[in-house]
Amino acid sequence: MANSVKIFDTTLRDGTQGEGVSLSVEDKLKIAQKLDALGVHYIEGGWPGSNGKDIEFFHRVKELKLAHAKVTAFGSTRRKDTKAEDDPNLNKILESGVKVATIFGKSWDFHVHKAIQTTLEENLAMIYDSVRFLKNSGLEVIYDAEHFFDGYKNNPDYALQTIRQAEAAGADWIVLCDTNGGSLPGEIGDIVAEVVREVSRPIGIHAHNDCELGVANSLAAVAAGARQVQGTINGYGERCGNANLCSVIPNLQLKMGFSCIADEQLAALTPVARYVSEIANMHMPVGQPFVGNAAFAHKGGIHVSAILRHPKTYEHIAPELVGNKQRVLVSELAGQSNLIVKAEELKLDFDKNNPKVKSVIERVKELEHQGYQFEGADASLELLLREALEGLEEVFTLESFKIIVEKSAGRAVVTEAIVKVKVHGETMFTAAEGNGPVNALDVALRKALMPYYPDIQQVHLTDYKVRVFDEKDTTAAKVRVLIETADLETSWNTVGVSENIIEASWNALADSIRYALIGRTRVEHKEQQPERLGLVNH
Amino acid sequence: MANSVKIFDTTLRDGTQGEGVSLSVEDKLKIAQKLDALGVHYIEGGWPGSNGKDIEFFHRVKELKLAHAKVTAFGSTRRKDTKAEDDPNLNKILESGVKVATIFGKSWDFHVHKAIQTTLEENLAMIYDSVRFLKNSGLEVIYDAEHFFDGYKNNPDYALQTIRQAEAAGADWIVLCDTNGGSLPGEIGDIVAEVVREVSRPIGIHAHNDCELGVANSLAAVAAGARQVQGTINGYGERCGNANLCSVIPNLQLKMGFSCIADEQLAALTPVARYVSEIANMHMPVGQPFVGNAAFAHKGGIHVSAILRHPKTYEHIAPELVGNKQRVLVSELAGQSNLIVKAEELKLDFDKNNPKVKSVIERVKELEHQGYQFEGADASLELLLREALEGLEEVFTLESFKIIVEKSAGRAVVTEAIVKVKVHGETMFTAAEGNGPVNALDVALRKALMPYYPDIQQVHLTDYKVRVFDEKDTTAAKVRVLIETADLETSWNTVGVSENIIEASWNALADSIRYALIGRTRVEHKEQQPERLGLVNH
Repeated sequence: MANSVKIFDTTLRDGTQGEGVSLSVEDKLKIAQKLDALGVHYIEGGWPGSNGKDIEFFHRVKELKLAHAKVTAFGSTRRKDTKAEDDPNLNKILESGVKVATIFGKSWDFHVHKAIQTTLEENLAMIYDSVRFLKNSGLEVIYDAEHFFDGYKNNPDYALQTIRQAEAAGADWIVLCDTNGGSLPGEIGDIVAEVVREVSRPIGIHAHNDCELGVANSLAAVAAGARQVQGTINGYGERCGNANLCSVIPNLQLKMGFSCIADEQLAALTPVARYVSEIANMHMPVGQPFVGNAAFAHKGGIHVSAILRHPKTYEHIAPELVGNKQRVLVSELAGQSNLIVKAEELKLDFDKNNPKVKSVIERVKELEHQGYQFEGADASLELLLREALEGLEEVFTLESFKIIVEKSAGRAVVTEAIVKVKVHGETMFTAAEGNGPVNALDVALRKALMPYYPDIQQVHLTDYKVRVFDEKDTTAAKVRVLIETADLETSWNTVGVSENIIEASWNALADSIRYALIGRTRVEHKEQQPERLGLVNH
Repeated sequence: MANSVKIFDTTLRDGTQGEGVSLSVEDKLKIAQKLDALGVHYIEGGWPGSNGKDIEFFHRVKELKLAHAKVTAFGSTRRKDTKAEDDPNLNKILESGVKVATIFGKSWDFHVHKAIQTTLEENLAMIYDSVRFLKNSGLEVIYDAEHFFDGYKNNPDYALQTIRQAEAAGADWIVLCDTNGGSLPGEIGDIVAEVVREVSRPIGIHAHNDCELGVANSLAAVAAGARQVQGTINGYGERCGNANLCSVIPNLQLKMGFSCIADEQLAALTPVARYVSEIANMHMPVGQPFVGNAAFAHKGGIHVSAILRHPKTYEHIAPELVGNKQRVLVSELAGQSNLIVKAEELKLDFDKNNPKVKSVIERVKELEHQGYQFEGADASLELLLREALEGLEEVFTLESFKIIVEKSAGRAVVTEAIVKVKVHGETMFTAAEGNGPVNALDVALRKALMPYYPDIQQVHLTDYKVRVFDEKDTTAAKVRVLIETADLETSWNTVGVSENIIEASWNALADSIRYALIGRTRVEHKEQQPERLGLVNH
């Protein structure tokens, strides 16, 4: 027990306060299942007293029959000058049907005066009454001491009195919150150690990231005796976010020797982090510690040659422990050694005396100069290398495309694409409608290829990213498009660059489809496939 | 002096190792000027022994005549089994003309064996000879002890021997590097304190962020006696990045009482951080501590009502100290109180009993449900509120637009837009070419408006962002477009959402131009303005 730290996830409550984060009830249910599988101990699902969406969540989460995690509902202590049993917010927690309540109260005398505008005595009674009421109703109660560290720094006696009320009323946990995220690890460690000495209940930590110290503050609290950490996946949360559990958990478990979740659960951390970022529709920073795409990526030439000799030279942990993997990036900084690594990965012969090798190195440099980045577009790079070194079957060649977008006031916008491509010597001329220009192009191109490659049906675009660069003259600037494509088994990324977003999209799309088709079975019964002439509309 | 910490910026060297970061010589020169104005003490400009771009940088940076910062060139200790004076890499540092050299050597016995494959004795000689050679050449020498913490943990005696070589050879600074970013603040503090006791030269810290502890580790080192911090703007750097100076500096200065840069320089931190992210073309996370757009943003309804009473309730520092500002966000979570704040900011009468107020609240909710986000699009929200509560002059209304994009193999892509809009009762029918569909639409719309609003010439798009959401079915999913527009004095943001990227762009563009024109002088001499008929091509 002394070595075990409970993980309290508040992605679904505090996380949704982050700018840009907005989760539907369906989204929250999906994430709750992932969190349960990850092994977190508590899932804070929302604030039933605050909005109807959260009430629906608590209703539906029961049907999921989570294997492990306890679901908890959030709320505040009773309002001033009311009875706990009459408080609508506390009753909403009971009605939600959870077995664990998490309620917050004020620890900072300044807040009692300025924010809720009551007396210090009434605030103490609000805490006691609320915890007591929920305990009497048979719930496990987690008491969140809001602004505890600011309160303690301002008036330690009063801050301690507030949590003693929660203790006396029977709270199961007392969680110290650095609500404004302004405290430093040393302060957190000292104050937590003091509270652990003073209070008989187990202590938790709830840190925010306003000083970029949310993780460090959580670790300092655990080192000082806290045994519950509250945080969110990817650190989502108001302002600069909450403590990032995707960093807290591996640090506690791999570096500090605490036990939070099972090893095989930890090995699922990266997929869970990426899943939540997708559902929340938040861009995951490429360099996010432990779980980011670049967390174990190596770019510099020196690093790359050393990493080939021994991974430990430039990796602080084995990436597989957190479900991530090593990557080698290609860029001007690395000289040729990274391209060599990539060629080795692809089992291509990359002899520097070969003039083809020299010319593909030049070609990569020239494309990077134009604004291509192959770091996020492995499939485009692979096509380039294979084409130059081995030659590739020509799947199709573009003769022309045309896109028309028409909008009249009060009517739906209409988008059409007409594509003329040569496929194995035959000119295919197809047209398609789409929800937008890229979709219309994609559908028209598939129509042209279907007679030869019926497997293309299994391939679909899964992500589309646009980056404008040279931001001084924007709509006339260059555009880089990244497309992610997947079939039933795997996914790949391609890139296109142009001044024109449509042409950039076409370049990325053409690479994506080309990559999909290389090595796939080609069929020859053209006569039975009227689609190739664009006669069938789908 | 004891209270002063020197800031060593390596954005231009280590920062460029970050995935996606690529800076031209021009970019580096621009950033160097900003860093100098910010007050950093050292600017590491690059590795002249590694690539030609860096040599050009050192040549040209002399012309800038920086006021304050010392420019330093990076390199490694001499190669094994060569003389320092014959080492090309060390000679490139001298040739670069800098007055400060920063060289790194190995501290970790494991690395000596595995990475550079030499003896422990030869490594010690490599360090001594290299520092001595540069000192004899009259340079200030900063010795970066690579992997010092991993080395010390593995073999403390040898790690200390390596830095004693640098000390004996006359190094001006000894900087301890956590190169793999795997150390914890407690370890860093203990080891730095030990080194400060053992070594007579001033000590620095170079931390990486692989455990999300880059900032905490830097602070722990300073608390233990380090007096130089190496890091990068926005924490750019290989893998998970370097220690983020945009968090290190305010923490040291505002929280820990150390002195790094002048107060008025600190008040320029946010603009510098945003400038560097623009030049580096890196997305700045909205929740980045201290300098992010959401670092002092308030979303939840309770927070917002408290913040109105007293900012200190939910702000750990005054945002102005770091050049940032408070923002109030609008979202479903906040109930109506945030919309009220926004209306107050705009001096609109927002009486809840007013049916117009109820209906605009409903309208905002409905648009958010469709995927609009007004958090990054203040101008669109302002138009919506003013329209509903005050009524707005109708600047123009769309009748139709049509866009044609044509591409033939071997030829440049051609994009045309045809726009029909009603401007003050008259139908304007214009056509334009563009570098892409949005540019063509923008040019055609301006043509239609120019006869009435010649001021529109001063307005230009400065940023264009595309976000696809619902990533399951991408090209057929919804698209949110954010446009930033500026005139000579200010800038504003608008949003558009549609399944079709062109229509979403139009929505954002129309809002942007509408916002620009409201309140602007309208001219009436139509006859003298043939452009309105689309006769003049520009």
